Amino acid sequence: MERETGRGQKAWKLLTELRERSPLIQCITNFVSMDLMANTLLAAGASPAMLHSLQEIPDFTPHAHALCINVGTLSPDWLSSMKSAASLATQLGKPWVLDPVAVSASDFRMKACLELIELKPTVIRGNASEILALSNASMGPDKGVDSSHRSVDAVEAAKSLAQASSAIVAVSGAVDIITDGQQVVGVNNGVAMLQQITATGCAVTALIAAFVAVDSLHAFEATASALSIFGLAGEIGMDMARGPASLRMHLIDSLYGLDQATVFSRVNITNMS
Amino acid sequence: MERETGRGQKAWKLLTELRERSPLIQCITNFVSMDLMANTLLAAGASPAMLHSLQEIPDFTPHAHALCINVGTLSPDWLSSMKSAASLATQLGKPWVLDPVAVSASDFRMKACLELIELKPTVIRGNASEILALSNASMGPDKGVDSSHRSVDAVEAAKSLAQASSAIVAVSGAVDIITDGQQVVGVNNGVAMLQQITATGCAVTALIAAFVAVDSLHAFEATASALSIFGLAGEIGMDMARGPASLRMHLIDSLYGLDQATVFSRVNITNMS
Amino acid sequence: MERETGRGQKAWKLLTELRERSPLIQCITNFVSMDLMANTLLAAGASPAMLHSLQEIPDFTPHAHALCINVGTLSPDWLSSMKSAASLATQLGKPWVLDPVAVSASDFRMKACLELIELKPTVIRGNASEILALSNASMGPDKGVDSSHRSVDAVEAAKSLAQASSAIVAVSGAVDIITDGQQVVGVNNGVAMLQQITATGCAVTALIAAFVAVDSLHAFEATASALSIFGLAGEIGMDMARGPASLRMHLIDSLYGLDQATVFSRVNITNMS
Repeated sequence: MERETGRGQKAWKLLTELRERSPLIQCITNFVSMDLMANTLLAAGASPAMLHSLQEIPDFTPHAHALCINVGTLSPDWLSSMKSAASLATQLGKPWVLDPVAVSASDFRMKACLELIELKPTVIRGNASEILALSNASMGPDKGVDSSHRSVDAVEAAKSLAQASSAIVAVSGAVDIITDGQQVVGVNNGVAMLQQITATGCAVTALIAAFVAVDSLHAFEATASALSIFGLAGEIGMDMARGPASLRMHLIDSLYGLDQATVFSRVNITNMS
Repeated sequence: MERETGRGQKAWKLLTELRERSPLIQCITNFVSMDLMANTLLAAGASPAMLHSLQEIPDFTPHAHALCINVGTLSPDWLSSMKSAASLATQLGKPWVLDPVAVSASDFRMKACLELIELKPTVIRGNASEILALSNASMGPDKGVDSSHRSVDAVEAAKSLAQASSAIVAVSGAVDIITDGQQVVGVNNGVAMLQQITATGCAVTALIAAFVAVDSLHAFEATASALSIFGLAGEIGMDMARGPASLRMHLIDSLYGLDQATVFSRVNITNMS
Repeated sequence: MERETGRGQKAWKLLTELRERSPLIQCITNFVSMDLMANTLLAAGASPAMLHSLQEIPDFTPHAHALCINVGTLSPDWLSSMKSAASLATQLGKPWVLDPVAVSASDFRMKACLELIELKPTVIRGNASEILALSNASMGPDKGVDSSHRSVDAVEAAKSLAQASSAIVAVSGAVDIITDGQQVVGVNNGVAMLQQITATGCAVTALIAAFVAVDSLHAFEATASALSIFGLAGEIGMDMARGPASLRMHLIDSLYGLDQATVFSRVNITNMS
């Protein structure tokens, strides 16, 4: 599979638009990820807003350009807000992205994610075990929130889920997989140590929301671009890192500073179908 | 407008007292900002406490030296705690500071902030759009939590709000504005990139609470000093930063390490009235 | 008191097992500490999971290898989850660790901690004032969440608490104290500046949970090892730090990169009984 040079140009175009337009991204997310998610969005040029109250959704969500929903520290009252905001976003034609963190952790969480998928997310991003579980709607025990399956195993599951849900499905892993149920592309950017930093998966989901906000008509390309840009920032950050905490810092600095030449030459997306 | 050299000496005196007395600052704040707020307070020499339960306020708030209330991720139950703590602080003559984050995001939030202002905050700090909105009590849509108005536009709004509320009002921006309704000073410290880091506004509000805690009789000076000291730490941090994440780190390190000569020579506060 | 060379070998053995087995550690903790706690666990090789909903505990807690409970931002609904998870852990023979943050802040919090202790934690870790307060079950005002008593003062209180609760009791301070009610050891690793970083106490409690997860039959040794390893990472980080924020980064990087020679030569645990 050969790297497609046109993908770098598309990714750069989207990143440039993101920096210019600074879309407002509402995040209803877990407590662990809020800091990194907000800083990722700011570094990319977006405008984050972590409003989660049911009372505020009718007033606020219509002003957001995209919505990011993440079930990492789910509770019943937050689930009500998530459903309300997702429902409103879909109704208003706004893109929204679902991160089904640790979906197999409990029946409550699996049911919540399946209900959210009924509300028509634009994109679903998870690791291989999460996407496999969602696709199978299996309730078995899962090894925490980290992936214990290789992402390539999940290609068929991702395609099935994409077909069933009409969402773009992205599977993070050594190679990230993105599919709309027909096409499949792989993103080869990123470094393994990103998995040693909490909430990097959540942060890239928020970045997908920001990319989709600037080109919701091409959510497939926007999703692949976001994953590639985030992974590329990680690669550049890794050159300066001594461990996961310095990688986290350099990741954000690198995302902020990404330039055209780097994006053109290093975005690495390949066709897999 | 000329830089006033006496302001550096006042700011240093307050910072020194803060480091010596280590006032206990109770923060009822949003989920995004807790980490940076606590680390800002610790780096400045204060003792942060993030207690928010209604059950704990009658026992704990009387021991705090100041209270910081921030509505960034407001919900009805947290609002009850905020009102209870604010009411108790005012009753006990303790200073408290309000950060009306994204006050225009919803009617619920605007109403909450107006109710909190009834409870007599010592200081209100926001960005220009927040202070304008509060001053106008207008309900229009707002572009997220970041300022889309220049702070100088907000001088008149800040004076009106200060007169109506009897609070010191601070408006963050390229130049920070502080007013008690009559006097107006501008703080010229700070760097633009601080806005690319989530929760720096929240953090400086907490620092104002700490400064006011050590000299509540001169809340106007204490507020200007806190904004200047935070901005100065940002300036020093900026010399070492490669982007927003490294700036965040160097900001806190610089705040921790600020010395007399630097504060004397670089605090930059000017009279504007 | 002489440094015991065998302790370094034990600590290295436990750290190696932790890295190999990657135990799943459920944390029901405060909002301030979630980020640092998760990153500490990841850097040490463990797998963190911040699930806190009552609905999820029956499904999820049986899959965790240890549980970490921290009352820093306690509220009644979170307390219900803490009790449910602690009760289930004890029933299933899983180790769990309690961090009684600011236990004297309110009657509500003291009562909550005493009820949690009834559920038989494997380890209780606090600072000297917290352990003294718990041991005395005194309700007096406390200076926030930071220690205002030296840890050596707390040795007798720790022994009493350990005897009354059947838990290992650890007291953080310039020298960390660990006791099972009979034996007492001191951990001499660590640097003072760790106290200027929020949630380092919470993070080391989570690390204790991870160490106890890999050797629950020797919780006393595991607790001492965790405190020593964390302190040692702080010492190494301190060589590169310019202040508390850079220390925080280097602490995590150093924890991630700890090697056998360093652990063997620098773990500094002494017998005190």
